[in-house]
Order: sequence, then C-alpha cells, then structure tokens
Amino acid sequence: MDRPVTPTLDRVKLPSDMKRLSDRELHALAGELRAETISAVSVTGGHLGAGLGVVELTVALHAVFDAPRDKIIWDVGHQCYPHKILTGRRDRIRTLRTEGGLSGFTKRSESPYDPFGAAHSSTSISAALGFAMAADLGGDPGDAVAVIGDGSMSAGMAFEAMNNAGALKRRLFVVLNDNEMSIAPPVGALSSYLSRLYAQAPFQEFKQAAKGMVSLLPEPLQEGARRAKEMLKGMTVGGTMFEELGFSYVGPIDGHDLDQLLPVLRTLKARATGPVLIHVITKKGKGYAPAEMAADRGHARAKFDVLTGEQKKTPSNAPSYTKVFAESLVREAESDSRIVGVTAAMPDGTGLDLFAGRFPKRMFDVGIAEQHAVTFSAGLAAGGMKPFCAIYSTFLQRGYDQVVHDVAIQRLPVRFAIDRAGLVGADGATHAGSFDTAFLANLPGFVVMAAADEAELVHMVATAAAHDEGPIAFRYPRGEGMGVEMPARGIPLQIGKGRVLQEGNRVAILSFGTRLSEVLKAAEALTARGLQPTIVDARFAKPLDRELILQLARHHEALITVEEGAVGGFGSHVAQLLAEEAVFDRGLKYRSMVLPDIFIDQASPETMYKVAGMNAPQIEAKVLETLGIGVVGLRT
Amino acid sequence: MDRPVTPTLDRVKLPSDMKRLSDRELHALAGELRAETISAVSVTGGHLGAGLGVVELTVALHAVFDAPRDKIIWDVGHQCYPHKILTGRRDRIRTLRTEGGLSGFTKRSESPYDPFGAAHSSTSISAALGFAMAADLGGDPGDAVAVIGDGSMSAGMAFEAMNNAGALKRRLFVVLNDNEMSIAPPVGALSSYLSRLYAQAPFQEFKQAAKGMVSLLPEPLQEGARRAKEMLKGMTVGGTMFEELGFSYVGPIDGHDLDQLLPVLRTLKARATGPVLIHVITKKGKGYAPAEMAADRGHARAKFDVLTGEQKKTPSNAPSYTKVFAESLVREAESDSRIVGVTAAMPDGTGLDLFAGRFPKRMFDVGIAEQHAVTFSAGLAAGGMKPFCAIYSTFLQRGYDQVVHDVAIQRLPVRFAIDRAGLVGADGATHAGSFDTAFLANLPGFVVMAAADEAELVHMVATAAAHDEGPIAFRYPRGEGMGVEMPARGIPLQIGKGRVLQEGNRVAILSFGTRLSEVLKAAEALTARGLQPTIVDARFAKPLDRELILQLARHHEALITVEEGAVGGFGSHVAQLLAEEAVFDRGLKYRSMVLPDIFIDQASPETMYKVAGMNAPQIEAKVLETLGIGVVGLRT
Repeated sequence: MDRPVTPTLDRVKLPSDMKRLSDRELHALAGELRAETISAVSVTGGHLGAGLGVVELTVALHAVFDAPRDKIIWDVGHQCYPHKILTGRRDRIRTLRTEGGLSGFTKRSESPYDPFGAAHSSTSISAALGFAMAADLGGDPGDAVAVIGDGSMSAGMAFEAMNNAGALKRRLFVVLNDNEMSIAPPVGALSSYLSRLYAQAPFQEFKQAAKGMVSLLPEPLQEGARRAKEMLKGMTVGGTMFEELGFSYVGPIDGHDLDQLLPVLRTLKARATGPVLIHVITKKGKGYAPAEMAADRGHARAKFDVLTGEQKKTPSNAPSYTKVFAESLVREAESDSRIVGVTAAMPDGTGLDLFAGRFPKRMFDVGIAEQHAVTFSAGLAAGGMKPFCAIYSTFLQRGYDQVVHDVAIQRLPVRFAIDRAGLVGADGATHAGSFDTAFLANLPGFVVMAAADEAELVHMVATAAAHDEGPIAFRYPRGEGMGVEMPARGIPLQIGKGRVLQEGNRVAILSFGTRLSEVLKAAEALTARGLQPTIVDARFAKPLDRELILQLARHHEALITVEEGAVGGFGSHVAQLLAEEAVFDRGLKYRSMVLPDIFIDQASPETMYKVAGMNAPQIEAKVLETLGIGVVGLRT
Repeated sequence: MDRPVTPTLDRVKLPSDMKRLSDRELHALAGELRAETISAVSVTGGHLGAGLGVVELTVALHAVFDAPRDKIIWDVGHQCYPHKILTGRRDRIRTLRTEGGLSGFTKRSESPYDPFGAAHSSTSISAALGFAMAADLGGDPGDAVAVIGDGSMSAGMAFEAMNNAGALKRRLFVVLNDNEMSIAPPVGALSSYLSRLYAQAPFQEFKQAAKGMVSLLPEPLQEGARRAKEMLKGMTVGGTMFEELGFSYVGPIDGHDLDQLLPVLRTLKARATGPVLIHVITKKGKGYAPAEMAADRGHARAKFDVLTGEQKKTPSNAPSYTKVFAESLVREAESDSRIVGVTAAMPDGTGLDLFAGRFPKRMFDVGIAEQHAVTFSAGLAAGGMKPFCAIYSTFLQRGYDQVVHDVAIQRLPVRFAIDRAGLVGADGATHAGSFDTAFLANLPGFVVMAAADEAELVHMVATAAAHDEGPIAFRYPRGEGMGVEMPARGIPLQIGKGRVLQEGNRVAILSFGTRLSEVLKAAEALTARGLQPTIVDARFAKPLDRELILQLARHHEALITVEEGAVGGFGSHVAQLLAEEAVFDRGLKYRSMVLPDIFIDQASPETMYKVAGMNAPQIEAKVLETLGIGVVGLRT
C-alpha cells in the first residue's frame, strides 16, 4: 500500500520529540501529518474531516504544551487521529475503529496522552476544569486545555462549564475550534454570533503582527511575551459574550497558520493567569479536496481511494432503518399537518433531512441540545402538535430528566424515534444504545416499542402518529434492514399486543427488537434437531402483552426473552409480571438474554453480538441448556 | 383563623376579572395578594420567598396578557402560589402540598392556567418556544411567556433554549426574574454579569420615564406605544449577551413597581415581533420581614406564625439523613485531603454547606448545572481527587448521560451521594427519587448501595471514600433517620456483601434501603403468627451478594425483595441472577416489591407509602399471599 513520505514525522515518536524541532520543521511536520491522516483513514474509514481541520492546531498544541503532564482534552474526540499519530500510536493508526485496534475517539485506557476520553460532545470544558481544580488542590499538576468545536459549544453543558470556570477564575485554556460545522451546518444564535466575530476579524493584519511576534519570542520569553500580549489585546475585536462569562478572549485567529498559532499559544502558556478562550477558525476537511468539497466536509467516511476520494461502500440489499423511518414519517406527515420533526444536530444521521426537504417549516434542528430538544418537543405537544423527536439511543441519555419530568409526568404525546438502539459496531461502547428500554419502560404511562424488522418500523411510525394519549417511543438499530417485503403504508398496531410467528412446544422465545432474525435462525436449527420452539415478537416492552405472555408461560416448559439491551428493560418487566402472577412458583424455566454487564469495545457488529452472546448459535445454546439438553454438535 | 381583608382580591375569580380593574386597583390587588399568600403558606408551609418576590409581576402579567389563551409558564413553579390565587384556585390555596390538595408547583392537570407544569428548573423557555412554534404552525394560538429566575438561567438547558429561540426569531417573551438568589446565593459568571447590569441600571430615571409612558398609552395604543418603545430602547443599558443570542433586551426594571411593569409589558405585548428578554429585578421574600431577613429569603418554610414568622417544626428524635451524610463526610475528609464536595446549587439541601464551612477550598457549588457537576467530578477524579458529587435522586436524572459516558465508561471513582431517594412527601411526583437504582445498577463497573438506616449511611460514606476502583453510589431518603445507635466512625463495608439480620424459615425478605424498618415491623407481626421470616439487608444492588442470595433461595420456599424504587432496579437484578442460575426452574416463590407504575401525587410520606404498597401491613400481606396463607385478620 502506498504510504506518504514523512521524514519529519518519522522523527516524532512522542510530543517530547517535537520540542527539538524548529518552527520551519513544525510546518513540514503538519504537512506530513495531514498526508498520514488521509492515508490512514483511507484504509480504516472513520472521521476524516474533523481531524484534517485540526492538523496545525494539533501540532501547535503539542509543540507548546507538555503532554501528558499538561492535559489536552479533545471534545467529542473524533478529531483526534492526528493527535494519536503524534502520541505514540502511529504504528497502530491503521487499526482505527477495528476490533482490538485503536478507538476512533480518545480513550483513557489507550494512552496517558488521552487524559479524558470522549465521544459524546461538549464534555471537555467540565473535564478540563476538574483537572485544573485538582491541580490546585494537590492532585495531578499541569495545565488543562479543552479543544471544543463551535457545534459542541451550543450544548448546555458547555455553557454550564464556562459559567463555572469564569467564576472560579482558575487558569484554564479553552480552544474554540470554529469550523462553522458541527456535523451538519450549525444552527442557533451562538453560531450567528461566532460568524459575526469572524466577519470582523482582521486576519491579514493579525498574521503580520503575529509573525512579528515570533521574532519577539526568543528565550527568555518575558519581554517578548509582554509585548506580544499587548498586541494580542489590541487585536481582539470581539468576544464580549465570553468576556462577560469571565474568560479572556483571544481571536479569532487562523487555525491553519502555525505562524499565528505558535506565538499565540506560547504567549498564553507563559502568561495566562485566568480562564482564556482562544477562538480559532479552521476548515473541516482542510487540505483534502474530496473532503473540502463534500457537503459534510468528509465528516465520517467509509474506506476510500486517496486519489479520487471515492468511498468503498459495500452495496446493500436492504434500506437502512434510518431511511425507512424517514420515509415512513414523510408518508404519515403528508396526511397529518400536525406532525413535526425535531432533531438535535443530526438531520442527516436521523434521516430527518428527508423530512425537512419535504416540510421545511415543520422541521426543527435545535443544535447539539438534547435537553432542550425533548422539552421543546413537550411544548410542541402541549401546543397541539405531534412532535417526532428523533434522537439516537445513546444521546437520549442527555435528555433523560426532560423525558421523565416534562414528557412522562405530564403524559404529553411526544413521539421518540430512537435510532442506533443496541450495539453499533465501529463507534464502540460510547455510542452503544444499551439502556433506553430500561430507562423508558419504567416510566408510568410510556409506550415502548422495538421494531423487529424494517416493515415493523413502518407500522410503528404509524402507531406513534396515531397515539395521542401519552408518550410513545420506538427503537431500531443502526444499519440495514433484513430485506423483508415492505408494506405500502404503515398500519397502527394495537397497543400492547405482540405477534406469534410460530407455534411450537416446550420452549417459547419472546423476542423484543431486531434480534428476532437470529432467534428465527436459532429456531431453524432447533427444529432440525426435532425441537420446534414457539416464537413471539413482543413488539411492546410497555405495556406488556400480559395475556399472551402468561399463556406462553402456561403452555411451555421454558420461556426465554431476548433483547438488545441491558438488564432492567424488557426481560425485567416480563420477570416482574411472572413473579406477580405466581408463575415462578410452578417452576417455569425462565431466562432473559440481555446485553452483558460490560462495555463492549468497537468491533464488527457480528463480533460484538458474539461477545454479547446474542447470535443464533448462542440463542440455540441457551435453549438447549435451559431444557437440559446436551450441547453435542453445537455450532459456535 | 385570621384571614387578611381583601376587598379587591375578592372581586377577582379569574384573570379576566382583572381587565376591569384600574391601575390603582391593581396596586391594591397586589397588596392583598401578598397578604393572602403569606396567610396561606403560614397554614400549609411551602415555598414562600419565591412567591412573595413575584406578587407584582404576577399581577402585571395577568393584567396584560390573556391567560389561558396566552401561555404563562413559571419556571420551577415554586413561585406560583400568587398565580394560583388569581387563577381560580384561591378557595383551595390552603390545601397546598397536601393530599388531594393543590400541588406546590404548576400542574397541567390542575388548571388550564398552568399550560406547562414544572418543579425541576430551567425548562420554561424550551416549553414556551414549543408553544410559540406550535401556534405558528396552526396549533394552540396565543403568546408564550416564560418566567425564569437568574439561578435557573445558569442551567445549560436554558442556554440551549435561548440559543434556539434567538435563531428561530419567533415572538416570545422571557421574563428573567433576577432576585440574585436561586436557592442558595447564586454562583457562576452569569450571575456576576447580571449584577453588573443591575449596578448600571438607571432605576429612578426609568421609573419617571415609565410613569410618563402610562399616560402615553391610552387606546388606541399605536402612537403611544411607538414612543414608549423608543424610550425603552434608549433606556436599555446592557444585556448585550442576550442581544448576541438574538433577543431584544429590556431592563433592568424594578419588579415590585407596577408603574414600571405595566407599561413595559403593555408596550411589548402590543409591539414585540421577535424574542424579548425582560430583565426584572425582584427581592425574594419581598414584603414579609421574617422572609426578607432570612438567609434563604424564606425559600421553603414549615407552617409558621404570621406575626412572628416563627416556624412550627415538629421536634424530631433522630438526625436527618442529610445531616448524617454531611457529618460523616466531614469526618472522612479530616483524614483524607483528596476528598472534595460537589453540589449543583444545593449546599443546604445536600448538607454540603457543613462541609464547605470546614473545607471551603474543597467544596464546589457549580450552580444549577447537574450535567457539568457530574463531568466536573469526573475530571476531578481523573486528576487524582476523591469527589463526592451530592445530588438528589430526581436531579441526578439531569446528569445521566454524564454518569454513563464520563464516569462509568471511564471507570472513574466518582462518589455519588444520592439524597431524596424514594418518595418525598409534599413535593410530590416530580421530586420522587424512583429511578436511580434502575438507571445506575445496569452500568458496568458501578457499585450501588442503599442505606437501611442512618448508621448504615455512615458506613457507606466510609465505603465510598475507600473505594478507588470505580464509580460508587449510595442512596438515602428524605427526612429523619430511625433513631438507631450511631457508630463513632464509619467502617468500610465489604463490597457486594449483604447482612443477615434474622434467620427464619419458609420466607426470606431481602430488603434494599430504608424500607427495612417496615420489613422488620412486618416480620414481628408474622412472627406473632408463628411465621418467622429470614431478614436480610442487601446493602448492595450492585454487585449483588450472589452467594447469599442463592443460599436464601435454596433454603426458603419464598424470596421477596423490597425496595423503594421502580421496576428495573434491585429486584430486577436479583431476578436476573435467579433466572441465570436456574433457580426458578425449581419453583421458588419469588416476588419483587417495587414502587407501583404510577406517578404518586403529594401526600404525607405515610400515605404515599400506603399508595405504593410499601408499609409493614402490606409487606406482611405480600408474605402471606405468596405463601398461600389466608389473610384473615390482616391489618391494613
């Protein structure tokens, strides 16, 4: 495989090696680092645009700060590939996002240069402030530097952290990496504010002045730094919002120009006493034309050809769940003007961009702001609309209190479309949607569904649209459907009723969600052994189909639930029912297959399901073991 | 009982009655409304200071806006007593916070004048924006007005909502009720910013000008309003932060002066086109000396004597759990300098004020900002400290994603002190801590404990202090302890080990948390019937004491778990263990007593537990029913 020529990068094993490089060599290093990043991601796939946008910033931060003593915390962490290359992980960079390889995000267990892992956005300032205060109190010493994108800055928790940091007045560096893109183009008033700052920026003059500063900064830095600081101060053209929150504001500066970054960071490192916000303007996908020209600036890519940028996607037979959801919602909305869509900065990921294309006025992208997204949806529902609030399972955790307090307690008919429910493959543990069934199904008045396949999803969208009595949620996984025949139109399901797919004997398998396909495979294998199980798609974790479940318990020796979620969810509700109805007293062989009690690292979905014990052979083995049948000849 | 003389208020049954009142009569109405509020709360107890601070604002809003067509949304809702008196609920105002009576917060099911209920802070702007956009799209018409305190404004979700509202540019009113107090004195940079605005306020000149405006506002309003608007504009002295977020800023104005409030609100109602922030300065506890002079401005009071302000607290025999936690933490911190405390605006409620008094530099009040509080604690832990993050169960829901993503996945040793776990009495469903065991115990690597009494709590604080291997949480309820003997010093418990309190036969009751006292009572009654149960305090929901539980299952006909939490928690983990270990196959009579699947309205704790089915007679009944013993003579 062609590798870029990288003589300077080859000399840098760790950031400490960079201290020996001249500024000219750092320029060369940045170029090589960009080439290496592109080359690596072409092989692995992953987040490309964000990393390319911070190549120079990464070089500058490591040249000026002393990691791992100084804590450099990358918000979200998907821009960290260049950082990983510079911090002792270059030899494994082509294992990104694969089983046993490097994580696609920062990760504490992976390297001391990742002082605080991430994957969800907007946590970096809180974490950095924690490090800063710990250092003050005799904990780990060193500076704390948070690097956060403008999209992440729109989340409430970033504001909470700024508000707290501004009051504590401790030395702290927040680098606002403003690329005018979160994943989608940014939304919200803060983003307009940043654009205004940018428009006022005297870039060229700044560049000249900053270049002058370089010569002003020999060792000892003192006098030069003092003068540089004055210049910086004079050049600051805005940022009053940050200053009102107690931060010194520096910028905006060109994040691709080391001649600006290096002197500014050196000066601040030498002189800053309180919290500083450094406003850096970058371009997502910088330096790689196919990324720069893409609408999402090469946000996340499959493996690709470096020369052409063409992505090597494997063709799929079935539409993705995301697309099925979006198309179904559009169809429902065509005949119901009260349906509106709400997303938190994921119009593309949730498929709601399709909805927005059709009904632009009925679609709200509120930015990275899940708390607001949920309560805003509650307000829309209270105002008579039918909001579909589409949030990934893992990110809905951000709006949990709002789901309880604003939606459930008030019984407001907000519809939650929960994408990426279950294991997610290359994004790993931080993006797994493991807990939604558990944290929703014990809320009074909630209806909680899981689609067993893409046709079921169509019906569940229709069910949610028709359900005006209270909150309703439906979960579906990442990736493509099963390729089943699709209904022309969704038909509302009867609330709380499951469907029997196959009647058998001795054992009933009660499946909740898309593991049904594996259950069916397991059933085939079992039938070949002469044991035909009863198969039921529960559809609902709440309300449970009590009648059906009790009937299954009566007529079978064993009952096994299967769900792609942690304990506390569907299976726990079934167990509670069986306990209350004194079913266990009679000796039912009950088992509940749930995700194991570990955070599962990134791998292929197949491997992850194997680790989770949720593939057909493992379901088959569970049935045999439960019935006390020997496992001779069991395929694993 | 003495009631205040209220001739004007007597004529106001609904806000529509206020439209006939002159401004002079509105002044009189405000005075009478204040007296009635004080009188009512003296009988019921409850949130006094907040309501007194918004008497004039409440009158002005209802005089100018047209509720319930216009949606007036009170953030948190604890300042809504005057609002309830003016909106058809005066005849029931002395039932506040009692069983079957009025809620202490706004509540949709209680009145059409409560368009969006609350109790947790900072939701009002999101909800109001939802109503505003719904109105735009053909839903319920009318203006949306959010009234939010300066403390609530520090929460991230308020910022998220402002950011979104500023971008959507829809007509929307946000009244910032700035009393420089959240519950405790406010913290954070935003609060300093507001103080600066306040310091610059030309109050007196404004008052004169505003008075002039009154005469400028006859019908038709047009010309007068135009001129008033210009005057308003000229008088605005600050608020750039809000303007940068896309809001028009008006203020600060004196929130106790109807001559300012009325003309400003009338003008804005007549003319505003986009989002407006109206900055109103009020005094918590205004007009009632005992409240004004209290450190917390009369935030929440027991019943009191109107003349003296003296509170009628019933003397208690045992210390509160809150106090026991705080004292234990201080004791641990005396010998461990790495222990730090983190609270989200609840130094008093969590008891951490005691810790702060002793270790001021090791205590962090981050404001109403639970998301940040959790990740900040994670940062402190990563930096080598031992953070005790003390948050009520219900408010920890606000930081759930941070618990999962920043603490659990990284296995950082953050200690969660979870107060108000379980039912809470007068604050009702919104403050119930029902879900924490369920949402924490399925997180890999977490340790989850519940204290059975106040002595156990002392040991659990010590256990948490000693546990450096990962996250650990301990829950304890609102109110006083059992009056048990207290240990001189906490001794770390063995992780994952329960304690057997009494050996018996046939049935084992496995209790998690403070319902143990009721279990013991039930056991006494059962023993009197000749049935002595085995009683175990589980201590840990995670990790479970597998060995002990399996042994109990082996040696008893029935096993019953008891916990003050929703399904999905302790009992579900026990059931999962029993299922996996094939215990059900043998016909164990298993039951799990959990909180019922309803949101329980406010009442006395005793009544709430009865509704929940968690008092001793109900536990006794459950045992008898499980064993198939007749319930003759059963006390209820």
